[in-house]
Amino acid sequence: MTAPDLEARLDELESRVRISEIIARYCEGVDRKEPDVFKSIWHDDAEYLIGADRGNFTGLDDIARFPDIVRNVWKNTYHWTTNSVVTFQARDAASGVSECFAMCEKHDGGVCFVGARYVDEFSRRNGVWKLAKRRVQRWFQSTPQDLNLAPPA
Amino acid sequence: MTAPDLEARLDELESRVRISEIIARYCEGVDRKEPDVFKSIWHDDAEYLIGADRGNFTGLDDIARFPDIVRNVWKNTYHWTTNSVVTFQARDAASGVSECFAMCEKHDGGVCFVGARYVDEFSRRNGVWKLAKRRVQRWFQSTPQDLNLAPPA
Amino acid sequence: MTAPDLEARLDELESRVRISEIIARYCEGVDRKEPDVFKSIWHDDAEYLIGADRGNFTGLDDIARFPDIVRNVWKNTYHWTTNSVVTFQARDAASGVSECFAMCEKHDGGVCFVGARYVDEFSRRNGVWKLAKRRVQRWFQSTPQDLNLAPPA
Repeated sequence: MTAPDLEARLDELESRVRISEIIARYCEGVDRKEPDVFKSIWHDDAEYLIGADRGNFTGLDDIARFPDIVRNVWKNTYHWTTNSVVTFQARDAASGVSECFAMCEKHDGGVCFVGARYVDEFSRRNGVWKLAKRRVQRWFQSTPQDLNLAPPA
Repeated sequence: MTAPDLEARLDELESRVRISEIIARYCEGVDRKEPDVFKSIWHDDAEYLIGADRGNFTGLDDIARFPDIVRNVWKNTYHWTTNSVVTFQARDAASGVSECFAMCEKHDGGVCFVGARYVDEFSRRNGVWKLAKRRVQRWFQSTPQDLNLAPPA
Repeated sequence: MTAPDLEARLDELESRVRISEIIARYCEGVDRKEPDVFKSIWHDDAEYLIGADRGNFTGLDDIARFPDIVRNVWKNTYHWTTNSVVTFQARDAASGVSECFAMCEKHDGGVCFVGARYVDEFSRRNGVWKLAKRRVQRWFQSTPQDLNLAPPA
């Protein structure tokens, strides 16, 4: 094994770690209402495509509006993302598919169960991995349930 | 550190990536009704053991019947798998334990919450990791709930 | 790339695997009622901080009381942990944040949906990674639902 091969294999494994962090920080940014965390995961010219009632967003300024849109619809959201498969097209470019289960609480207290797929394109620029494109395919949103979510006393 | 040691350590880390993809693709194959994805994760002589009302399957042809069995029982399924611990017995053999949360929609619309463990044996043959054996231990299946799952308009 | 650099990069990737196993084994220890698995993930002087109605625990003997406390409150628990971000402060010290979705069954059969964050400190001593500190931030616990969890017949 040559040194360049070795470096490339280590680099891909480390890139997988960075990409898994992006996938987690998306949830953190939205759920914990941390706009800086949310903005940090997108390239300046990224695309965020949800469609339907949410719309599509192009460029970081446009995408940065998304958490407020979420907040208008939901009082609280909780996203748990799993089942990630990430494939590299080049050392600095990878695509990913993940599945997300979410519970989303309406402002009147009703709670919807939500299932969605994230279809992602990641790229590394100036040494930093970020999302170049995320397309969301929502599989379902349940009718609101009376679950009365609250932290333990 | 010798070159063989190095190669073995990198190889195990890369094998972990391949195994995590198998675990994700099982969900994709079943949930998205993609029989080729489902079939691609099993060795020709694999065993798939669920028992109870689902049965046990031996060999790829038999296992390939499973998605249709799922489809007879459920209109739609959504599996999210986490908590994986994978242990290597040899460079080409590993065992794994994962936990899965699922929501499964009956043909009449009722939705069951399901919890299950996957106890797996993976092996690498001709350079390709696949499942040699999966045993499913279902912890629970809830009574059907009236959640009315539907994609957003 | 020098040999020490290489060793450090491989070591961090392997440490990430060990840490992901600790996160999974916490769930296994609690959910499957395996006290030895639960105890194995904590350093002797670890802290486990939940607060509110559960309390805080210092040292392995104190922490080992936790599964019984869980069992007094819940007949069965099921935890699925995702969204992990682990950051290394040194080769033998890392912090982590994960998010957990859980379903917890009361002794009378009611089932609560639970969401929580784990804020962790991991350290490696004598070559073994364990939890030095886990703080649990519970986001919500739903009112009990009549789901009648049971294994398939």
